[in-house]
Amino acid sequence: MKKTPPRGMSDMMPADMALRDAVQGAIIATYRDFGYQRISTPIVEDAENLEKSEGGDNLNLIFQVMKRGDKLDEAIKDGDQLWDLGLRYDLTLPLTRFYANNHTKLPMPFKVIQTDRVYRAERPQKGRLREFVQCDIDIIGDGSPRAEAELIAVTSQALLKVGFSGFTVRINDRRILNALFAGLGFPVEQIPPALISFDKLDKIGMDGVCDDLTAKGMPSNATEALRSFMKNDDLLAALPSFTGELPEVSDMALLIDELKEVGGQNWNVLFDLSLVRGMGYYTGPVFEIVSDDFEGSIAGGGRYDNMIEKFTGIATPAVGFSIGFERIISILMERNYRPPAQKPALALLYEEQDDFVKVFGQVQELTGTYLVTALPLNTSSPGRQRARLERDGFRFVKRMSEEVSELGVITT
Amino acid sequence: MKKTPPRGMSDMMPADMALRDAVQGAIIATYRDFGYQRISTPIVEDAENLEKSEGGDNLNLIFQVMKRGDKLDEAIKDGDQLWDLGLRYDLTLPLTRFYANNHTKLPMPFKVIQTDRVYRAERPQKGRLREFVQCDIDIIGDGSPRAEAELIAVTSQALLKVGFSGFTVRINDRRILNALFAGLGFPVEQIPPALISFDKLDKIGMDGVCDDLTAKGMPSNATEALRSFMKNDDLLAALPSFTGELPEVSDMALLIDELKEVGGQNWNVLFDLSLVRGMGYYTGPVFEIVSDDFEGSIAGGGRYDNMIEKFTGIATPAVGFSIGFERIISILMERNYRPPAQKPALALLYEEQDDFVKVFGQVQELTGTYLVTALPLNTSSPGRQRARLERDGFRFVKRMSEEVSELGVITT
Repeated sequence: MKKTPPRGMSDMMPADMALRDAVQGAIIATYRDFGYQRISTPIVEDAENLEKSEGGDNLNLIFQVMKRGDKLDEAIKDGDQLWDLGLRYDLTLPLTRFYANNHTKLPMPFKVIQTDRVYRAERPQKGRLREFVQCDIDIIGDGSPRAEAELIAVTSQALLKVGFSGFTVRINDRRILNALFAGLGFPVEQIPPALISFDKLDKIGMDGVCDDLTAKGMPSNATEALRSFMKNDDLLAALPSFTGELPEVSDMALLIDELKEVGGQNWNVLFDLSLVRGMGYYTGPVFEIVSDDFEGSIAGGGRYDNMIEKFTGIATPAVGFSIGFERIISILMERNYRPPAQKPALALLYEEQDDFVKVFGQVQELTGTYLVTALPLNTSSPGRQRARLERDGFRFVKRMSEEVSELGVITT
Repeated sequence: MKKTPPRGMSDMMPADMALRDAVQGAIIATYRDFGYQRISTPIVEDAENLEKSEGGDNLNLIFQVMKRGDKLDEAIKDGDQLWDLGLRYDLTLPLTRFYANNHTKLPMPFKVIQTDRVYRAERPQKGRLREFVQCDIDIIGDGSPRAEAELIAVTSQALLKVGFSGFTVRINDRRILNALFAGLGFPVEQIPPALISFDKLDKIGMDGVCDDLTAKGMPSNATEALRSFMKNDDLLAALPSFTGELPEVSDMALLIDELKEVGGQNWNVLFDLSLVRGMGYYTGPVFEIVSDDFEGSIAGGGRYDNMIEKFTGIATPAVGFSIGFERIISILMERNYRPPAQKPALALLYEEQDDFVKVFGQVQELTGTYLVTALPLNTSSPGRQRARLERDGFRFVKRMSEEVSELGVITT
């Protein structure tokens, strides 16, 4: 039998789980403080829902669950699709389905927490897992820019709570991008592929973006207009000469000011015109948080005002922000972050002749102060046992008839 | 698009999750107090591992995950098996694989917590879910009967902690059953099917069991010997005349005495000869906890000393006990159990003209005392809004410029 977990997935050791539980607990507690409520949905979703979900590349990465029983036999016989369920690739599709199914019983607006596992059958590589955890908050039913401001402020509070500081919030708006690119002279139907090139700005630079646009056959005057626009020092102020007086531009300026004031010394806020984000379902502001010390984003989100309508037929504004839990855990581990102290671990060493009831009685008494593990005393090599106990994270040790003593301190 | 969750699976509403998080948190905290450490493994396991896992009927209930890319194309072309992963049906197979993979880095004995989701493609019916949570503790590397005693005592502590009392621990031993049935005259190869009949004793009575055995062609003298044996008042004391002096019988008597003493008034302990439990992998003691007020078992487990050896080639004793989390949650909901109080919920009502920074500042201040949800004041029907807030579980309300007041109390 095969000892390793499935390819691209991980076993979590006790120390991993202690850290993950502490960090997830702190994030959830912060979200609850700000009035968000936790829900949960199944790991699998209906195949058709997944296929229609505008998840971009993720739709090619779905783990497909086979039909069962007679339905499978029929599908094989008729040459039909063999799967009817799939592992979810994010928490946004399940949330919109959940909201559509339950909205009459939910508060309005609905502020919601999801922290759970998602799946993507990516080619395994460093930092790319096939099973990973996301921590999302979403606000459903608030179309005002306050919703973005709150989500970003609350997510930042959660990151501060788990020991992050020195991070930058980057914000953009899909509607601003579309208006600007139209104003610069890109034909409307060419804007989505042009944005895919523009999204690579931080990786390939402005020359690289222009080469990419030229290779895609974009009009050269539009490409050059973009190059020259990007030379502006204050992009946000420069926008109206191409976009006209867009309300999204003044909303963006206000949002950035508000978040700067709320953040104070704790975080930076930037307008980042090259931020596009991959999901097809975003309709307005999109945003990311990047750590100042570590590469890559640690949280990402945006507004998706059309998703719920697909289920209910009723237009319903929605916006979400997702912490990349695996990314922050790996940063915290690089930093040797220790979760806040719980009770110290104590090993209670009993001998063969000690009766169970007496041992369990002592364990119960000590649990007030310690995490207590009852273990058989290794009478043949007690020294080696002490070394093992230290390796295993015990700070205190006690024999049945003796007092508690600290490990690492030799007793006579 | 389809609004409902996949068949046999559930969406968890905010009130459900508040209860589930509180109960799971209390169980995990109890287990940690007694020195158990949490681990986690992926939701999916290798198909071959699942198929060889001796999971009894559960092997027919596996959700199968299809191969991907070229491997799928090849499998279709060659008529091979189309799936290479499956959703796990319990937490014991993943634990044994985990232990085999990581045992050099783990304490010995290893006391471990798993609380997580498992999957069975059962025919959906009341109380039978296709996705559900189990809370397991296991001890790996302790072959002594102390391990069973501790698992049962600690699981009972966890049940007491979440408000259960009045429950009964039922214990049996597969080795005792096998020795007894051999002693009664059942041929060795007939014992497994005979035990399947005997397992139904509480449902169909002794006459039913005997009819079942006769229908299976069991020797009538053995069947009659069983009927007459079951008339003994003290089955445990009557065993040795058929089994000889088995150490398992005296171990069982000691285990029951110890657990009675530890439990005191909190729980009963019974030797239950008809307890078999379905898993093929059990090798020794098997046990269940049944509530005195609600039908069906709320926890079940047993010793499985051969599972880890299948991965490692090294004989390694192991025993586990699993709380049926969905069952206890549904009992707690029937009882209207409320989790211990956290901060009360407060709605902070702002108006259109209030700026975000000021609102967020008030929210932050109030989070010390309350769970604070910022919501737009419904100026056109504030009375209706108050009613909605009460429905949604808010106990306090505050406008930006006013003091906190209790909901349900009319202010002027």
